[in-house]
Amino acid sequence: MKVPVVQRILSANDQIAAENQARFDAAGVFVLNVMASPGAGKTSLILATAPHLSPAVRVGVIEGDVASTIDADRIAAAGIPVVQINTGGSCHLDAPMVRSALEQFSLEGLSLLFIENVGNLICPAEFRLGAHLAVVLSSVPEGHDKPYKYPGMFNGADVVLLNKVDLLPYFDFDVEYFRQGLEMLHPNIPFFLISCRTGEGMEEWAQWLLQRRSESSGPQRKIQSA
Amino acid sequence: MKVPVVQRILSANDQIAAENQARFDAAGVFVLNVMASPGAGKTSLILATAPHLSPAVRVGVIEGDVASTIDADRIAAAGIPVVQINTGGSCHLDAPMVRSALEQFSLEGLSLLFIENVGNLICPAEFRLGAHLAVVLSSVPEGHDKPYKYPGMFNGADVVLLNKVDLLPYFDFDVEYFRQGLEMLHPNIPFFLISCRTGEGMEEWAQWLLQRRSESSGPQRKIQSA
Repeated sequence: MKVPVVQRILSANDQIAAENQARFDAAGVFVLNVMASPGAGKTSLILATAPHLSPAVRVGVIEGDVASTIDADRIAAAGIPVVQINTGGSCHLDAPMVRSALEQFSLEGLSLLFIENVGNLICPAEFRLGAHLAVVLSSVPEGHDKPYKYPGMFNGADVVLLNKVDLLPYFDFDVEYFRQGLEMLHPNIPFFLISCRTGEGMEEWAQWLLQRRSESSGPQRKIQSA
Repeated sequence: MKVPVVQRILSANDQIAAENQARFDAAGVFVLNVMASPGAGKTSLILATAPHLSPAVRVGVIEGDVASTIDADRIAAAGIPVVQINTGGSCHLDAPMVRSALEQFSLEGLSLLFIENVGNLICPAEFRLGAHLAVVLSSVPEGHDKPYKYPGMFNGADVVLLNKVDLLPYFDFDVEYFRQGLEMLHPNIPFFLISCRTGEGMEEWAQWLLQRRSESSGPQRKIQSA
């Protein structure tokens, strides 16, 4: 007797995430979902990465925050196209919010889009947006135990960046312990030490990002899941 | 015609929170719900505050984390009674989790209990635990815009502590801008600048805490809502 197998049915969120991704692909835009604790430096990462990509790669930003337009104002001041989503209390972005943002934001002429998620190391990991790459940003002042304490977030990452490494002399932060926590969850995960303030590590990260972007286009593109 | 008024009915969580608080009151234990971003220094705050309270005030700790016992191990190593709650993915503690922890943790002999919530500036604000005081801890490396970006958390605080002030020389952090954000949400909120590493500000905070604790006991005690 053949046992019937029920195929996995996409949740409402995942279905809209897939639609978002199809829309990004049609527009030729490579999309990053940037996730981190409050104050880890998500906006600074976007601002420090963009100059390493342009002028070849035209960058845009969707900003997610519980409240305020502080981050979007910083992005706009740098001359980067940006739209702000205020979640009004919600602790994460979801695919419908991104779809709504796209109604007010043109992908035309862009080749790379950063979606800056709400500052939160837990909830955003559970909601796909339709991005091609899940970027998790941690920072030295938060401490080296974060991969052990927030495994869901680091486990779902495609790449991990450790920011504010210029502050390592002032903190009791063991980079090897942090790296071991990552490796335990996700062997061989790409991992970069950066400082958005001093620029350390930014060129390596940007080159890796451009490489990933070029690999993801074309007919053999592997579907990612952020 | 008299308009019928439906009294507010407690949610299941709030009902259990009220039961937890009754239990704390019966045991004569003053309880703090400590909330902050990942890595702001919640465990360090507990460890740095306890010596300023003892031996008169016997301290205990309920530790909340998504995963790991890293924080509880630090507390236990300091000789402080502690129980760990692993939320298994959930982004906040709730009143039933605290009730469960109390089944494995004796309040006898304690006079002050810290509940260290999950590292998250959003979700924990929405779930009362039965504590007497909502403590929100922020830290210099997170940046001075946090009250503007996470108003729900700061609005619900009974006291706000700014940690890692020894690092102010290394950051572009405007204490007055942070304070204005707080005042906008919650005029005259008690606010302390501290460094758990250097001990700066700890005695003032501890004295304030002891004062609040003494005011909260006795028949005229005002019910708090953390």
